[in-house]
Amino acid sequence: MELWFTEKQTKSFGITAKVKRTLHTEKTDFQDLDMIETEEFGNMLVLDGMVMTTQKDEFVYHEMVAHVPLFTHPNPKHVLVVGGGDGGVIREVLKHPSVEKAVLVEIDGKVIEYSKKYLPEIAGELENSRVEVKVDDGFMHIAKSENEYDVIMVDSTEPVGPAANLFTKGFYAGISKALKDDGIFVAQTDNPWFKADLISQVFSDVKEIFPLTRLYTANIPTYPSGLWTFTIGSKKHDPLEVSEERFHDIETKYYTKELHRAAFALPKFVQDLTK
Amino acid sequence: MELWFTEKQTKSFGITAKVKRTLHTEKTDFQDLDMIETEEFGNMLVLDGMVMTTQKDEFVYHEMVAHVPLFTHPNPKHVLVVGGGDGGVIREVLKHPSVEKAVLVEIDGKVIEYSKKYLPEIAGELENSRVEVKVDDGFMHIAKSENEYDVIMVDSTEPVGPAANLFTKGFYAGISKALKDDGIFVAQTDNPWFKADLISQVFSDVKEIFPLTRLYTANIPTYPSGLWTFTIGSKKHDPLEVSEERFHDIETKYYTKELHRAAFALPKFVQDLTK
Repeated sequence: MELWFTEKQTKSFGITAKVKRTLHTEKTDFQDLDMIETEEFGNMLVLDGMVMTTQKDEFVYHEMVAHVPLFTHPNPKHVLVVGGGDGGVIREVLKHPSVEKAVLVEIDGKVIEYSKKYLPEIAGELENSRVEVKVDDGFMHIAKSENEYDVIMVDSTEPVGPAANLFTKGFYAGISKALKDDGIFVAQTDNPWFKADLISQVFSDVKEIFPLTRLYTANIPTYPSGLWTFTIGSKKHDPLEVSEERFHDIETKYYTKELHRAAFALPKFVQDLTK
Repeated sequence: MELWFTEKQTKSFGITAKVKRTLHTEKTDFQDLDMIETEEFGNMLVLDGMVMTTQKDEFVYHEMVAHVPLFTHPNPKHVLVVGGGDGGVIREVLKHPSVEKAVLVEIDGKVIEYSKKYLPEIAGELENSRVEVKVDDGFMHIAKSENEYDVIMVDSTEPVGPAANLFTKGFYAGISKALKDDGIFVAQTDNPWFKADLISQVFSDVKEIFPLTRLYTANIPTYPSGLWTFTIGSKKHDPLEVSEERFHDIETKYYTKELHRAAFALPKFVQDLTK
């Protein structure tokens, strides 16, 4: 018998991956959590039926969420990751020696637990002494924070289920308040082929709150359309004006300093979503 | 009943698309040809079970094959497209007023016939008076040509079946001979996630023959991994050194002059394939 996991990424399109075995399946307090071993992508974390991360391609998302804002900020010391319970963004954040403390606020402790168990090379750095892990509501954590962080990264699921309020103008206003005067934030904002309206809406909302708003992309094979977007809101520093000296050597598989800049050169139909 | 077309892009991974109806299915002299109407991507041309083009996302591939070399060459007049029977590359080529004649050499006349019928907005320009359509073997056409073309584009299927000999060093040597002294060629060279070895091999083969070899990428949702590569071999002109004045306004949905340059900034693991 062959088992295939199929994610319907839209009502009429999806991806399908051959499954060796199911490692864990559970209805947590917040979502359906499945961890499966696939033949093509290794272990795969699936939340509410949607691929979150896989061993083979996780580096793209995690590197591109972390390094673009962290190289943009001249001296990031205090970093917050909202969501991201698999620990991949945290792992990348710690590659920046300026970072003294990285706080992870993940609403679902089970994501952390099973990522540590089945995705150890992603989640391993959650034990690092520079990291503080809080199992808590990211929206509430933001609401309570003021003038605290240099960089905030929103590594959420789609705007359905537990992450719905992480795609609201109120949340972006809270993030602005939680950031220091020259703070910068980034959020994953889905794909332009099937979710163009979402990208337009978020971009316009963030633009109302932050002096500088920019969109960039990366290729993630297991995400819908393979083209993912990230929206940056920045109080001061421009990701397109990073000085050469700011870049230091870090080990990456996707990010390069040339790609940092190139990722902001958008396909025409994506550029149009930011107008 | 729901019908879904699934392309296994690897042995253990694929895409699946809901089908409204099958428009045409035929075993031609060269390959299995299917034209289906999908809900998400409109009409879709499938050859030997692999998605070739769809109404929704065709513009990416066709624009990126055509405009990168055509803006790189200072004055392209005589252009050859090998393969590309759907006519999409030809449509883009004709947006360049310098082009006096564009020759299409497609081995399978049925691809042309059914593209004209079911993909008219892609194939329509095949009737243009600046276009010469030949139903012929591209390999043989190249072998017979000498010092003839400014730009050659290889818009082939995968290196199995009818296109196998279009991925050989002998073919690239023939292309070099068929090009004028400052000619440039581009070929689609698959994706770096599942076909890394192919990209390395082609890059190294082309590099032995052309003074200048470069790789660039584009996002195509219906192609494996969503990240497609194109390999350029050039006798003189560098796609990274196009003067601002060279760019003129053309109507596009993906290509921009900024993206022209950015497409050559490769993810680290792709860059490594060119070393």
